[in-house]
Amino acid sequence: MRAVVYVRPRGGVLDPQGQAVVSALKHLDFPEVLDARQGKIIELVLEDGDATKAKERVTQMCEQLLANTVIEDYQVKIEA
Amino acid sequence: MRAVVYVRPRGGVLDPQGQAVVSALKHLDFPEVLDARQGKIIELVLEDGDATKAKERVTQMCEQLLANTVIEDYQVKIEA
Repeated sequence: MRAVVYVRPRGGVLDPQGQAVVSALKHLDFPEVLDARQGKIIELVLEDGDATKAKERVTQMCEQLLANTVIEDYQVKIEA
Repeated sequence: MRAVVYVRPRGGVLDPQGQAVVSALKHLDFPEVLDARQGKIIELVLEDGDATKAKERVTQMCEQLLANTVIEDYQVKIEA
């Protein structure tokens, strides 16, 4: 079973990596870029089992390790 | 207009961040995690315009800055 976790900076939280991307793209002549936010994707391969239970477990992984919930939001997607 | 870029380590390329995630999750008592790969998401806000043209431009941004195409794959999604 596979799970994909998307971790993004929360709205309102400063995102210096995103700002660096905007600035670099402007210098590379992409002035149409108005804003950028950078987050991470974590793709997990899990032992096969119940999808609902897996989603619960991956949510616990996010809370404990994968996301910093003070400044980041996460989203869990379970794939067959 | 918004674009989302997914950048992932290519298959076969060592992913030390992913390996660190697997190891940390095992220590946190999540033994069901067999493998993990870590990549990044970049969400761009673009000036409104033609979606096909925007996809071309964002692909150029990936080639020039956002992805290291020697070791990473990318995927571009344009949202209305």
